[in-house]
Amino acid sequence: MRHILIIGIGAGDPDHLTLQAVKAIARTDVFFILDKNEQRQDLIQLRRQLLADHAAPGHRVVEVPDAERDRSTPAYTEAVDDWRRRRADLVEQLMAEHLGPGQTGAFLVWGDPSLYDSVIAVVEQVHERAGADFDYEVIPGISSISVLAARHRTTLTRVGRPVQITTGRRLAQGFPEGVDDVVVMLDGRAAFTEVDPQDLEIFYGAYLGTPDEILAAGPLAETAERIREVREEARQRKGWIMDSYLLRRNTD
Amino acid sequence: MRHILIIGIGAGDPDHLTLQAVKAIARTDVFFILDKNEQRQDLIQLRRQLLADHAAPGHRVVEVPDAERDRSTPAYTEAVDDWRRRRADLVEQLMAEHLGPGQTGAFLVWGDPSLYDSVIAVVEQVHERAGADFDYEVIPGISSISVLAARHRTTLTRVGRPVQITTGRRLAQGFPEGVDDVVVMLDGRAAFTEVDPQDLEIFYGAYLGTPDEILAAGPLAETAERIREVREEARQRKGWIMDSYLLRRNTD
Ligand SMILES: C[S@@+](CC[C@H](N)C(=O)[O-])C[C@H]1O[C@@H](n2cnc3c(N)ncnc32)[C@H](O)[C@@H]1O
Ligand SMILES: C[S@@+](CC[C@H](N)C(=O)[O-])C[C@H]1O[C@@H](n2cnc3c(N)ncnc32)[C@H](O)[C@@H]1O
Repeated sequence: MRHILIIGIGAGDPDHLTLQAVKAIARTDVFFILDKNEQRQDLIQLRRQLLADHAAPGHRVVEVPDAERDRSTPAYTEAVDDWRRRRADLVEQLMAEHLGPGQTGAFLVWGDPSLYDSVIAVVEQVHERAGADFDYEVIPGISSISVLAARHRTTLTRVGRPVQITTGRRLAQGFPEGVDDVVVMLDGRAAFTEVDPQDLEIFYGAYLGTPDEILAAGPLAETAERIREVREEARQRKGWIMDSYLLRRNTD
Repeated sequence: MRHILIIGIGAGDPDHLTLQAVKAIARTDVFFILDKNEQRQDLIQLRRQLLADHAAPGHRVVEVPDAERDRSTPAYTEAVDDWRRRRADLVEQLMAEHLGPGQTGAFLVWGDPSLYDSVIAVVEQVHERAGADFDYEVIPGISSISVLAARHRTTLTRVGRPVQITTGRRLAQGFPEGVDDVVVMLDGRAAFTEVDPQDLEIFYGAYLGTPDEILAAGPLAETAERIREVREEARQRKGWIMDSYLLRRNTD
């Protein structure tokens, strides 16, 4: 039997790693690196540091070449499904090639694997295929939204009330029904400038947990434009951005 | 200046602790234990173990006596607000008594401090009062819902779609609008037996991360009754229960 570990590594700070993740990294023979031709040098550097600090001597690193994703189609879900399938093909092939009997392979997942990440789905697909002879385990990680709340010293939930986690694309279609607290991830368009700011407060964070961290908070009506500018400026300076935010409606 | 740390300790497994939390525990002079006359021996034991393993020699532990909470009133939010205020009084007093200049005090918070927890609000209240001379910092932790997803090897979010986190009390009022994925916490009543199970799947976990962990999953229509029974039986055996679940609507 071969083993696969899907390890949440936290969202930017190497000390977000849990003791469970440290132990999992230490018992891994082969790390499969699956990240879309990562351009972001800081993230590559963080991963290198985690391996240098915690991986066993003699561990191997195998890079999974990227499956192309069709970004031209409006059929977002189908495009992602298809892309996952082709990623699963690649993963299956590399596991057969690089993971010997009894060995342990691992995927390092940004933040927590349960939120907007496809590694679990890809591994599950490979696992379901005929002849798959491995087991797999998921190790939870600190999500960027836990870091967002921590850095703002606030909670995502108010007493007895719900919170919704959604995407920028969804938020742009309107503030969700039935909730007054909304966490937004995967926002490429600054969708917070597209909602009615009435009674809304924003808690914004970019590059959370890293030395470049940016925090901003305040009534959305007064801060949205400034945050949009700061965000644009940071994106240009670093070449990429990674941000999320909580919108909270004042209901008093 | 005195320092207060609000440290997320994860949801049951001592190895959920992050390296950041380990370091924070190690630099703490005084731990304030704030937990409603904790009856659950396993939780007390876990906390003891974390301190034995990671706290500095000579650290002190101060227990905050519990503020009574009015459980008779239907005004849930007001009762909680009032209770938090009285807890803030107690915390203020104990900080004055036990935390010297330059010293660091800490609160250990179950799971992640951002989800259905009041320690941040209590510390914030004390901090806002006249004469408060301390700073405070929040250290994120592994939430029980990250553990729930990990143990079921599933994600909380599907591609590009939202997830709502809510309480048992809310769920009993009806499945939330606008989402097909709902995570339920703080459910004292097995509210999953009260919703229309049509097209719903449940991913259930109790005592997650502990040796007593219980997992169950399946179509809600077929599993709700069995999970209710298992839950009742476990609650009676151990004297308490701590559970959460994901409800996912099949929309194909
Ligand atoms: C593909 S999702 C993965 C989320 C990840 N699994 C987690 O738990 O944070 C990427 C999104 O997460 C958010 N994100 C991840 N890391 C972040 C960070 N360090 N600071 C701010 N947002 C972050 C952003 O919204 C980004 O668009
Ligand atoms: C007061 S809330 C605190 C949540 C905590 N801050 C977190 O992040 O998990 C308590 C609720 O969390 C959930 N919970 C906490 N620990 C759990 C565990 N080990 N297994 C299952 N559910 C848990 C249950 O729904 C419980 O009613």
